[in-house]
Amino acid sequence: MASARTVQELSDAVAELTQGRLPARIAGAPQTPIEGVAGLESAQAADLSFLANLKYRQQALATRAGALVLDERQYAGLFPGGRAGGAAVVCDQPYAWFAYAAQVLAPPPAVRPGCDAGAAVASGARVDPAARVDTRAVIEEGAVVEAGAWIGPGCTLGPGSAVGRDTRLHAGVHLAAGCRIGRRGIVHSGAVIGADGFGFAPFDGHWVKIPQGGIVVIGDDVEIGANTTIDRGSAGDTVIGDGVKIDNQVQIAHNCRIGAHTVIAGCVGIAGSAVIGAHCQLGGASRIHGHLTIADGTVIGTCTLVSRSLPQADFYTGVFPIMRNRDWERNAALLRHLVELRDRVRRLERSAAGPTAPPTEHQP
Amino acid sequence: MASARTVQELSDAVAELTQGRLPARIAGAPQTPIEGVAGLESAQAADLSFLANLKYRQQALATRAGALVLDERQYAGLFPGGRAGGAAVVCDQPYAWFAYAAQVLAPPPAVRPGCDAGAAVASGARVDPAARVDTRAVIEEGAVVEAGAWIGPGCTLGPGSAVGRDTRLHAGVHLAAGCRIGRRGIVHSGAVIGADGFGFAPFDGHWVKIPQGGIVVIGDDVEIGANTTIDRGSAGDTVIGDGVKIDNQVQIAHNCRIGAHTVIAGCVGIAGSAVIGAHCQLGGASRIHGHLTIADGTVIGTCTLVSRSLPQADFYTGVFPIMRNRDWERNAALLRHLVELRDRVRRLERSAAGPTAPPTEHQP
Amino acid sequence: MASARTVQELSDAVAELTQGRLPARIAGAPQTPIEGVAGLESAQAADLSFLANLKYRQQALATRAGALVLDERQYAGLFPGGRAGGAAVVCDQPYAWFAYAAQVLAPPPAVRPGCDAGAAVASGARVDPAARVDTRAVIEEGAVVEAGAWIGPGCTLGPGSAVGRDTRLHAGVHLAAGCRIGRRGIVHSGAVIGADGFGFAPFDGHWVKIPQGGIVVIGDDVEIGANTTIDRGSAGDTVIGDGVKIDNQVQIAHNCRIGAHTVIAGCVGIAGSAVIGAHCQLGGASRIHGHLTIADGTVIGTCTLVSRSLPQADFYTGVFPIMRNRDWERNAALLRHLVELRDRVRRLERSAAGPTAPPTEHQP
Repeated sequence: MASARTVQELSDAVAELTQGRLPARIAGAPQTPIEGVAGLESAQAADLSFLANLKYRQQALATRAGALVLDERQYAGLFPGGRAGGAAVVCDQPYAWFAYAAQVLAPPPAVRPGCDAGAAVASGARVDPAARVDTRAVIEEGAVVEAGAWIGPGCTLGPGSAVGRDTRLHAGVHLAAGCRIGRRGIVHSGAVIGADGFGFAPFDGHWVKIPQGGIVVIGDDVEIGANTTIDRGSAGDTVIGDGVKIDNQVQIAHNCRIGAHTVIAGCVGIAGSAVIGAHCQLGGASRIHGHLTIADGTVIGTCTLVSRSLPQADFYTGVFPIMRNRDWERNAALLRHLVELRDRVRRLERSAAGPTAPPTEHQP
Repeated sequence: MASARTVQELSDAVAELTQGRLPARIAGAPQTPIEGVAGLESAQAADLSFLANLKYRQQALATRAGALVLDERQYAGLFPGGRAGGAAVVCDQPYAWFAYAAQVLAPPPAVRPGCDAGAAVASGARVDPAARVDTRAVIEEGAVVEAGAWIGPGCTLGPGSAVGRDTRLHAGVHLAAGCRIGRRGIVHSGAVIGADGFGFAPFDGHWVKIPQGGIVVIGDDVEIGANTTIDRGSAGDTVIGDGVKIDNQVQIAHNCRIGAHTVIAGCVGIAGSAVIGAHCQLGGASRIHGHLTIADGTVIGTCTLVSRSLPQADFYTGVFPIMRNRDWERNAALLRHLVELRDRVRRLERSAAGPTAPPTEHQP
Repeated sequence: MASARTVQELSDAVAELTQGRLPARIAGAPQTPIEGVAGLESAQAADLSFLANLKYRQQALATRAGALVLDERQYAGLFPGGRAGGAAVVCDQPYAWFAYAAQVLAPPPAVRPGCDAGAAVASGARVDPAARVDTRAVIEEGAVVEAGAWIGPGCTLGPGSAVGRDTRLHAGVHLAAGCRIGRRGIVHSGAVIGADGFGFAPFDGHWVKIPQGGIVVIGDDVEIGANTTIDRGSAGDTVIGDGVKIDNQVQIAHNCRIGAHTVIAGCVGIAGSAVIGAHCQLGGASRIHGHLTIADGTVIGTCTLVSRSLPQADFYTGVFPIMRNRDWERNAALLRHLVELRDRVRRLERSAAGPTAPPTEHQP
């Protein structure tokens, strides 16, 4: 998949991709040919690697990587006499530079334009001639597929749905009626976009379905993980901002709004009408109650339940610490009796305060 | 999608749907044409809206909705002189009335009878002529699809499976061999009904598969969310009662029994052979251990693990409260030492009790 | 599905399957015909059942099962005069014997060799003539399907992927480019193997995708549940060992390594580059942080978050115990103030220690 480039060519390509916003200098051996990327320890002569953190200094000194991306301070500290084993790419943000270089080395497969004969494309669907629709995909009436988009095998695009330019849907994605995804998106297999939200009114011992008349609107540059589900709005819409990255098996309920460039790790669940700010980070398996608001830039820890609005950005956590089960049994049992323990402390305090303290033990 | 009705026509239609069990009166402007539904703040002149709670009184007073559903007390309080801005529909259960009216305004698309030429229907399957099978669906031998049912694109119905009258399977649902769903059900994309349960016997350092010979039996009026999984029974069956509503990404293991009209929010996991009562509410991401019983009408909070039977209906919770991470670090560390803290309190109590207290500090 | 065998025939078949490693003796009535398996209470005359635990002794004495598997001690205790109601199969590991016997009674459907005319098989794919590819399956260029394998309807096999001998993919499984699964595996519907891992570098307020160039390598005898997702590696690979059993809706991130014969219950999430040992048991909905190591044989409780490496095998737990909500409200509120409670105890201790104690109250 990867095509060989010299370090110099890589650097030029990254400069072009980033329009010069990520300057780097090559410290020696600019003609080293690079074919792929690898971690410090497994990298070989034709690999590009990078240094995330100085705690890996030993691995960085020992790596066989043909080129190593790191920052100026790391470079000066580790290779005061230059890096003998290969090239070094020195820049302010090594990880970002590495990411762009990896994209250059391993671009996604080119989209072969055209609808496969085994696809089912409704006569009223509009598929751009420069888009690809694979076999067994189903494109229903009124759906739109823009140029450069790729609809993988077995995908279904409901009536009136829309896939933006250069967006790729892997095999088996379901985009329901009327839902839209923007440009340069990536949707992984099994994702379901636009199923009905979970809305019922209680009546007479049973539940009455509330039709879910909204849609899902997804911005540009959004990635959506495998088997993730994003429900359509009930009356209004569910909205995913530009640049949002969503991992696998995330559940986003109806009428949520996710701000731009927020990242959502695997197995997160967000209940209905939650409003998540921009540039947030939701840790894996965190859960967000419905009808609340989370400030821009908030970070939520793994497995944490957000049960109230968080108007101020911070790092929030709420998870029971892991213990050996025998310790947990004893500590968790006491957890059920914290109130009693507090009351015992209160009594001791009053007793210690002497005979002038009030006699009743149970006042708050 | 929505077709316009006057408020009077809507009221008549709801009365018919509910067979008169949800009486309402129209307070003024019965000929107002209504086309859709909306929240109080976004509603326009052709929208129906409703008042859930008096804390939204300002929005209710200000709404431009052509018709507003609310109860007698709310109506009297908010509009003592009548609602100038449009119609009011006054009834005991505004949310239920709103839900039925929304169904009238936005009925699901009509089912166009027939099997699409792109579907694969086994010769021994029985598809009612009044059912719809979409392209790329696969109906295997002995499967039965009743009148009015709709099998979406890319669905697979295993051998001997059955889909009841007027039940709709959205794109990409998998119903495995022998499994059955009743009438008027809705199954969303990516749901898998009837995969093998997780059953293995340990032997000699590995795991021996126990064949899963049971099926899944689903009642009438059941809704099942996107990417939800319901496993077939091992020897007996997995049973989902009438009127059960299941959200997205729920996992129901083999041999569970879910009582009628229970609602299960997103990301819930229920382990094998659990018996959940009727009219229960399982909060999002709650987890239920296997081989236990939960009483009818029990409510389980979000993210709560049910680790024992709950023979008495109540609202149960067990979740670590969210904190700023720096506070959590300090409090969670102490959580590992609750036993020691309790022991310190005990020593203080004994000390306070004076020299007559027993000398040993560690007795329970 | 089940084919009748006498108890003697069953015993012979199990002996053959296990190559004699699971010896058993038949105590009476070896010619009893057995057609299926059932629990003690529902078993009928043609059923095989087994005794898991002496707490079910009443059910074992009362069962109508034609044959009952139990161990020598249980047999001697329950049936000192022999089992009048039918056969008894006496062996050291009744559950394992039962599992093998159930496999004999209910073998999976035979694989009918050949590619269905409705499948889309690329000209450069290699499907063994003794494999089965069902309708609407898509096999892309360079994919390999070995003899005896079964590719269910609607599955997609990406370019260069490989399915080993006798492995079965149920309907709607997606195996991405280059990913491989070994022999005798079972993959349930909706599983997605080889979607991109979740890797992005932050830059300039947005996230830069890191191409995921690795694959997923799955060993022999692995079972993977419905809607489970296993991501491809970023640079290296994601590796699932032989004999691993994975339940539904499990998420395994890029570059994880799961040791042989580990079992992973439903809804588990494992973050990137975690290394799980062999013979571990991960309880339902447990969560594993990335870049950590768990020792062979470790057991993790339901819903527990593993936030650090566990170098020593043990049973670990960390979950908030369930309470009535009103009790939870009071106890959880105090949980936010454990530090203060500890400080109050500390002050009392100092006060009790008398005037010689240091005067400052806040020292650690």
